[in-house]
Amino acid sequence: MPEPFVVIGGDAAGLSAASKCKRESPDREVIVFEKGQWVSYAHCGEPYFVKGEVDKLENLLSLTPEEIEERDIDLRRHHEVVAVDPDAGTVTVEGPDGEFEQAYGDLLVATGARAVTGPIEGSELDGGFPLHGLDDAAAIRAFLLDPSEDALADVGGEAFVDRERVGRFGAMDPPETAAIVGGGYVGVEMAEALSAHGLDVHVFQRSGHLLSPFGEAVGEAVAAELREQGVTLHLNETVVRLAGEDRVERLECEGGTALDIDLAVVGVGVQPNTDLLAGADVELGEDGAVAVDEYGETSVEGVYAAGDCAEDDHTVTGEPAWVPLGLTANRAGRAVGATVAGDPTPVGSIAGTAVVKAFEQECGRVGLLEDGAREAGFDPVSETITTRSRSGYYPGAAETTVTLVADRESGRLLGGTIVGTDRAAVRIDTVATALEADMTVGELERADLAYAPPFSPVWDPILVAAKVLNGKLKD
Amino acid sequence: MPEPFVVIGGDAAGLSAASKCKRESPDREVIVFEKGQWVSYAHCGEPYFVKGEVDKLENLLSLTPEEIEERDIDLRRHHEVVAVDPDAGTVTVEGPDGEFEQAYGDLLVATGARAVTGPIEGSELDGGFPLHGLDDAAAIRAFLLDPSEDALADVGGEAFVDRERVGRFGAMDPPETAAIVGGGYVGVEMAEALSAHGLDVHVFQRSGHLLSPFGEAVGEAVAAELREQGVTLHLNETVVRLAGEDRVERLECEGGTALDIDLAVVGVGVQPNTDLLAGADVELGEDGAVAVDEYGETSVEGVYAAGDCAEDDHTVTGEPAWVPLGLTANRAGRAVGATVAGDPTPVGSIAGTAVVKAFEQECGRVGLLEDGAREAGFDPVSETITTRSRSGYYPGAAETTVTLVADRESGRLLGGTIVGTDRAAVRIDTVATALEADMTVGELERADLAYAPPFSPVWDPILVAAKVLNGKLKD
Repeated sequence: MPEPFVVIGGDAAGLSAASKCKRESPDREVIVFEKGQWVSYAHCGEPYFVKGEVDKLENLLSLTPEEIEERDIDLRRHHEVVAVDPDAGTVTVEGPDGEFEQAYGDLLVATGARAVTGPIEGSELDGGFPLHGLDDAAAIRAFLLDPSEDALADVGGEAFVDRERVGRFGAMDPPETAAIVGGGYVGVEMAEALSAHGLDVHVFQRSGHLLSPFGEAVGEAVAAELREQGVTLHLNETVVRLAGEDRVERLECEGGTALDIDLAVVGVGVQPNTDLLAGADVELGEDGAVAVDEYGETSVEGVYAAGDCAEDDHTVTGEPAWVPLGLTANRAGRAVGATVAGDPTPVGSIAGTAVVKAFEQECGRVGLLEDGAREAGFDPVSETITTRSRSGYYPGAAETTVTLVADRESGRLLGGTIVGTDRAAVRIDTVATALEADMTVGELERADLAYAPPFSPVWDPILVAAKVLNGKLKD
Repeated sequence: MPEPFVVIGGDAAGLSAASKCKRESPDREVIVFEKGQWVSYAHCGEPYFVKGEVDKLENLLSLTPEEIEERDIDLRRHHEVVAVDPDAGTVTVEGPDGEFEQAYGDLLVATGARAVTGPIEGSELDGGFPLHGLDDAAAIRAFLLDPSEDALADVGGEAFVDRERVGRFGAMDPPETAAIVGGGYVGVEMAEALSAHGLDVHVFQRSGHLLSPFGEAVGEAVAAELREQGVTLHLNETVVRLAGEDRVERLECEGGTALDIDLAVVGVGVQPNTDLLAGADVELGEDGAVAVDEYGETSVEGVYAAGDCAEDDHTVTGEPAWVPLGLTANRAGRAVGATVAGDPTPVGSIAGTAVVKAFEQECGRVGLLEDGAREAGFDPVSETITTRSRSGYYPGAAETTVTLVADRESGRLLGGTIVGTDRAAVRIDTVATALEADMTVGELERADLAYAPPFSPVWDPILVAAKVLNGKLKD
């Protein structure tokens, strides 16, 4: 038997790899080191826990520690890997009982990403939160609830949660005015979550558009939706400081704008956790994420990386890209698990497919939009159309806006976005599949997509966009 | 200028062709002969008009005669083309003022399909309806309404509808018990429509499954849904007779089953309208639909066919197939219009994509299922999975059942179905796009589809099915 398969990080990529390896190769020893107390949980569900649509914190766990044990995975929580020595084939681990070396046969780095708070002073004050982990979600929800409620019991997770922090926020008066710094996914989802608790919600965004990776058409629709829902938007405002005595009381922007607040959620981005690789000569990419080949192997033999800490090849450009999202983490982890178990499996490419709910608006994006396409060396042509989601005569038809981008010379589809209230988000999968297959806009225009009055007009919104863009390409 | 572009049939394919030709070549004379009074209307909306979700019959018109005139199309309603003489380049037309010959430069046969009532005696009795045209829809709705209501005004369409027929049914006592003969699209949609009016609804289906083109998994889910909604199913029952004095009073089946009824809707299939081509030496396909090349041209030069009367090439087999559905009619008509105007445009292939709403269940199908794949010479492997439509912890997650079929040797995806209550139908477009691109199941499994808790689990139901089927293919 080879040395154990050692996994660093007990979340989506790490546990997908561990599970797959154990299933394919039951005799192989698999050890997962997780530095924290939570394993395998749904980051993406946190805003819905804060909102209250998800009752219990435990519901966000994909796998409990018991289920992981049943799979015969040796899970060690509260064990942090602090160094990797590829020459010796060992990792250095700091555990509750001190530091030790662990030999590995194959190693997977699945350390994820961490929230950055950027150059914003005062983010560490009480009442200023990132939203990156169940402890943050628990603390925010405890803060939102009335102190007379038993916040700790209500949020669940007694066995794992930072009780002291939850108890402290639970005892405070609930906030009335909230600032969300950053109008990306987390910002938009948290605007919905905090509004549901009756707070006066303000979103601060450095650029002029929300959800910038989704392009202008989506950004504008989402801005309109947030305003209609009572959220105040502060666009083109750069937040420089959260100020207060012991806790956050005030937010200040570069140009002088200021606002009295009780709560701030800072969601201005994430960066890959790769510090432990500093001495290991593992190659990193432009964004600081780990560079890997098509099987997820790094520049060092036997050392793999997957999930939010790693790059993937981009479906459209074929070049490495860092797009930390859930499906690709799960898939890449699973592929590495299979490869390590003897069935070489490609991790797959990433198209940057993303969907997000902004109150009633469903937003989707995939591939390269105009700016990204230009940077990648294409000559992009873009078209945005607005049409109905169902036959016009059928009740519930809603305006749906689609943008498609293609390369002028080849007609190749490069990317697209969608926004609308009626089944808009899942329609982006049509574009994602077309990108996967290197289709041209003309080919997409001729796709035989579904039509029935309750679900789609004769020409699906995606087809309408393809038809108009294809017409533009012919001109 | 060449002789006029003559179009036979003023519905989806015909008017799409006429409009496109006029737009691309405004000086070309375009004449459309329509034997009836209705043009360009939404067949697929009829059940929803009967149900009452669509208020006015006029709402089902895609284009009014006035809009068609504005496009400078010479539309002649109540003109039936009875013969085509390709050698002379003329058609024989019977109009209100008698018979005449019309010369054409290009000719499009867009005569559609008609409902068959099969070998069922008594279908012509009052109270026995096909559902194929706005007059049928108007008469059924008038029948359902209380005689005290002004049925004619309520159903609208005073300018076009068969007033006598509507008035007659409007004056009758509303029916209480309805039989639907045939458990296909029309049958399932009409079960919902008639139930909404409080009728005791019975569906008779010759085979053991509803919606047979959707395969067993969908058929069973729909049967369960219809039963739960109070519809009585009579499977494996062949209806032979509708009986009554002046109007339908009783339904009789082959094995002796009988039921007293007041209303019967017979939806047992359609056949292409090609009688007028009898003397013209135009080649027909196996199903009796007109054979065409990739531009929609028939075996006779200058004579095109499109829509429900014509074949298309099947996306998966590459062979001619007759699948009369709305999008392909519109698209093929538009392509012929462009070709005739000097821009040769392929009509596109047909994947047999179809979606239908059965009360709360959304159903989709595309491509070849096991039987069809075997007939076409493939060695099909099929897998059916049931999973959730959203992250399990997010409210509203619903069971979604997906079947995918692939060729054993090549792994090529051949077709699939889906059923579920939460955004299931539009997900079939992912499979349709994959078929368009000749993807394998392995490639589909690696597609980067959208994930966010409100819209999809990490692994979309389509991906789960691809993953499981791909595993089966590897065994």
